Amino acid sequence: MSTLESRIDALLAPVAPSMERMRTVLSEQVRSDSGSVRDMTDHVSRFRGKQLRAAMVLLTGEALGTTTDEHPTVAAIVEMIHLATLVHDDVLDGSTMRRRVACVNERWDNQIAVLLGDFLYARAFSLSTDLRSRLVSKVLADTTRTLCVGEIEQATKRFDFELTQATYEAICSAKTGSLYSAACELGARYPERDVAFGAAMARYGAEVGLAFQIVDDCLDVAGEEAIVGKTVGNDVEDGKITLPVLHAWRMGDERVRAAMREVYTQPGEGRRIERLRKACNLVAGVDYAMARAHELVESARGRLRALPASAARDSLDAIAQFTLERRF
Amino acid sequence: MSTLESRIDALLAPVAPSMERMRTVLSEQVRSDSGSVRDMTDHVSRFRGKQLRAAMVLLTGEALGTTTDEHPTVAAIVEMIHLATLVHDDVLDGSTMRRRVACVNERWDNQIAVLLGDFLYARAFSLSTDLRSRLVSKVLADTTRTLCVGEIEQATKRFDFELTQATYEAICSAKTGSLYSAACELGARYPERDVAFGAAMARYGAEVGLAFQIVDDCLDVAGEEAIVGKTVGNDVEDGKITLPVLHAWRMGDERVRAAMREVYTQPGEGRRIERLRKACNLVAGVDYAMARAHELVESARGRLRALPASAARDSLDAIAQFTLERRF
Repeated sequence: MSTLESRIDALLAPVAPSMERMRTVLSEQVRSDSGSVRDMTDHVSRFRGKQLRAAMVLLTGEALGTTTDEHPTVAAIVEMIHLATLVHDDVLDGSTMRRRVACVNERWDNQIAVLLGDFLYARAFSLSTDLRSRLVSKVLADTTRTLCVGEIEQATKRFDFELTQATYEAICSAKTGSLYSAACELGARYPERDVAFGAAMARYGAEVGLAFQIVDDCLDVAGEEAIVGKTVGNDVEDGKITLPVLHAWRMGDERVRAAMREVYTQPGEGRRIERLRKACNLVAGVDYAMARAHELVESARGRLRALPASAARDSLDAIAQFTLERRF
Repeated sequence: MSTLESRIDALLAPVAPSMERMRTVLSEQVRSDSGSVRDMTDHVSRFRGKQLRAAMVLLTGEALGTTTDEHPTVAAIVEMIHLATLVHDDVLDGSTMRRRVACVNERWDNQIAVLLGDFLYARAFSLSTDLRSRLVSKVLADTTRTLCVGEIEQATKRFDFELTQATYEAICSAKTGSLYSAACELGARYPERDVAFGAAMARYGAEVGLAFQIVDDCLDVAGEEAIVGKTVGNDVEDGKITLPVLHAWRMGDERVRAAMREVYTQPGEGRRIERLRKACNLVAGVDYAMARAHELVESARGRLRALPASAARDSLDAIAQFTLERRF
């Protein structure tokens, strides 16, 4: 086990039994009576990942002393929505490797990936309708809508170097921050506390999620494939203008900008990411973006100070910090 | 207005004001604050279709005397789920025909279609969580899951001439019958009647839906493009073995079967549907499948006899009958 993996395990210690229950619910739920669907969901469950969103549901409940016996199910539902978005993302950007496991769309085809994502969404909503409270159905239906709108907005802004940082952040908040925010909100409010009770935790989640996305975008331009565990340079291949690129553009003169535009729009020799590294000062872009991520993480950590001291609160604090340190 | 269109209008007369309210809810809901999403949903709402599923919610409520002021919203939600499946179906068929050509423009279309379908599903679930009763969320989450499993099973059975009629019907019931069935069940049960109360109507819906799909499959091999209003022969291009084809296969000798297999699997001159018509007795296959559809429609109409006489019941009866007569 790597140092980072054992650090994550330590972060999850305050909710280890609930995480185990969450995993049991998750694996029961993604199974299906249909043999072919089961093969696929078995495959998907191999890209398990860090399950941070589920952990945030449970840690928030723990930190606020509001945990119920249904919290592990709520956490599993959040994780299923996340899995569904991953499967659909794979159709979108045509990437071939995720966490070193072949993506659904490579192993089967786009058709299956679309249907499997739909199946996971439906399973998640179906499970949410069995809970005592309607809060999860309500919050996650709205979150899923926000997620989709964020992804659609992002798709329409491809190749747009005139994108503002505010628009970039609004898109990232919608497509990534919203599910982190919902996880923390549900951990706090479930089953029936009002929206004010969850507001601070929702904001903590939104800031951590936005920071997470910014770091992800930095890794895509600056990370090493062997460490990141997935192909890097996808964003430039897809025409996405992310914060490090946007900053390099803003800092660049006319010549730099012309070169960047050419990398994004013209076919050329070699991978686009290599050409982009030569065309502009990506290192400065990454520094700028990481500084913004730091700012968000500090703000998120500040929100935790209102909570009573506990191991769960410390873990939430460390998760925020971890966002900045991860290299994958 | 064609004779058929005016006949459909006549069928909907008993619920005309509720259908109007349903359409208002539908167009309000598919709008979004995001300009780009709105452009797309505006486009989607142009392929409005006959809105039979929504009509079945309202007619069932009317026929059973159980209509509430929320029934038009329930009907709009059912119609949104249907729209979402249409949008995702377009990705599916497209991806099969394109055979994974990774051209940017095509990817863009797929990307948007996946997200737009997700948006419509999410909007539908979100709206269902605003209703007084949880029944709609519950029934439609389960229905959506069934729908996806049916589509996945269908995808894995492509090119499989050993498919049994029972498996074919189970797949069609899942991918098409389930939403018709849910529409009638919800019309009957909403907001809080128990499952027994809706059972007969759910079965009526399931039979009409299955008949509808069988007729659809017949039109795809036997229809004329000018009348059907879309390309025919898609199923054979996609490798789908439908009931008329299955029957022709069962009736064929070794020579016929070899020819059919060749049409499905080998590239050849001209469109596959033309070659299939030459390879086997598709006319006999269509006759057999249509007889099965007739049987289902008769059974569905029988279930209506338990209801008190009303204009709405007559419309449900006529809708079942219409399934067999439509040529588009």
